[in-house]
Amino acid sequence: MKINYNQEDRIFLSVDCIIFGFDNEDLKVLLIKRDFEPEKGKWSLMGGFLKINENLDEAAARILHELTGVHDVYLEQLYAFSEVDRDPVDRTVSTSYYAIINIDKHNKDLTKNHYAKWFSVSKMPDLIFDHNQMVSKAIRRLRRRTSINPIGFELLPEKFTMRQLQKLYETILNKKIDKRNFINKIKSMDILIKLKEKDMTSSTKGSYLFMFDQEKYDSKKSNDFYLKL
Amino acid sequence: MKINYNQEDRIFLSVDCIIFGFDNEDLKVLLIKRDFEPEKGKWSLMGGFLKINENLDEAAARILHELTGVHDVYLEQLYAFSEVDRDPVDRTVSTSYYAIINIDKHNKDLTKNHYAKWFSVSKMPDLIFDHNQMVSKAIRRLRRRTSINPIGFELLPEKFTMRQLQKLYETILNKKIDKRNFINKIKSMDILIKLKEKDMTSSTKGSYLFMFDQEKYDSKKSNDFYLKL
Repeated sequence: MKINYNQEDRIFLSVDCIIFGFDNEDLKVLLIKRDFEPEKGKWSLMGGFLKINENLDEAAARILHELTGVHDVYLEQLYAFSEVDRDPVDRTVSTSYYAIINIDKHNKDLTKNHYAKWFSVSKMPDLIFDHNQMVSKAIRRLRRRTSINPIGFELLPEKFTMRQLQKLYETILNKKIDKRNFINKIKSMDILIKLKEKDMTSSTKGSYLFMFDQEKYDSKKSNDFYLKL
Repeated sequence: MKINYNQEDRIFLSVDCIIFGFDNEDLKVLLIKRDFEPEKGKWSLMGGFLKINENLDEAAARILHELTGVHDVYLEQLYAFSEVDRDPVDRTVSTSYYAIINIDKHNKDLTKNHYAKWFSVSKMPDLIFDHNQMVSKAIRRLRRRTSINPIGFELLPEKFTMRQLQKLYETILNKKIDKRNFINKIKSMDILIKLKEKDMTSSTKGSYLFMFDQEKYDSKKSNDFYLKL
């Protein structure tokens, strides 16, 4: 047995980034309009080629930053897409990455770049290549993760109401959740701090605001736990 | 903005397969001894290069079959490993795949090839390149999956005792599980058929044998469910 490094087996490796955000109403995904052929004018994920002197994590962070201005985002590898004809120009295998970011926190970075725009995942346009499949796969991963880890809280403002948290979970899981049931399950997770402060915008009585208990949150993150909704 | 397909960005893409088995005692992983440089004589996962006319799933199945004789295995993509210096010969990004197989069922295929050998994951040798990292990542994925889906049952014989099932979970999760607690949780999953037949090898009283209810199993597989042990 002998393995050959045949030069004709060399191919292009690209990275595509799926960036999720939440605006208290919808789960959104960040897209850019492609201004070159092929598929010029269509919407696309943030993508580019892996360079010879960087690993995939580094490429994902660099490409996201170059195309949108967004930086300091924890990108997680999702899946390598490798259909032979997925890129009409040349054989390219693309490794997708995803991140969930706080729209408000990163919006000031984003405005520097006029190509990037948020779309609701329920109203996504037809994307280039296999990018719609990538987004679908990322949503499935996000849903599974939401059940295992307290992921998703990064999408909320620092202080939030129970209603906002429920709305976030309903949006990610794409289903209505019983309010009482939700509150009980969240309480049993024991990772929230109830504040004395209230949000008075939604009712005259007001709604208590909550914050995350970062320490407990980190300890739960390392020991997988389960929230079945 | 213009994306260039720079010829110097072309690199090698390989696939490495992590094959898990279970012999009623240990979680095992299939390895082959490398008989060429670099790292000749060391143990390795089953790996090879992606060809220009196949996708990664196809490459993984082909490579596993070529190197071990094993076929008809559901391989799932795990993760792309891309450190710049991971392969000392040339820049190669490797996408790892993993599968759990029934050792008895596939043993007759395996014997055709004298390179492949089962190792307990707790007594693994030092592998080539970053292959030890790949195995560690696959074990973590396997553990997480075991909690979400009724994965792992493929590792048992068709008819099995509750004790065998518990041993499998204890092996994958690498911890002791309380027997009564385990039986209750498994029963609440409602995916087993209790047979009238008993296994008489372990005690004079014997232990009831169980089989999977394939229909229920499939329906649970599609709707993620949770087994927290």
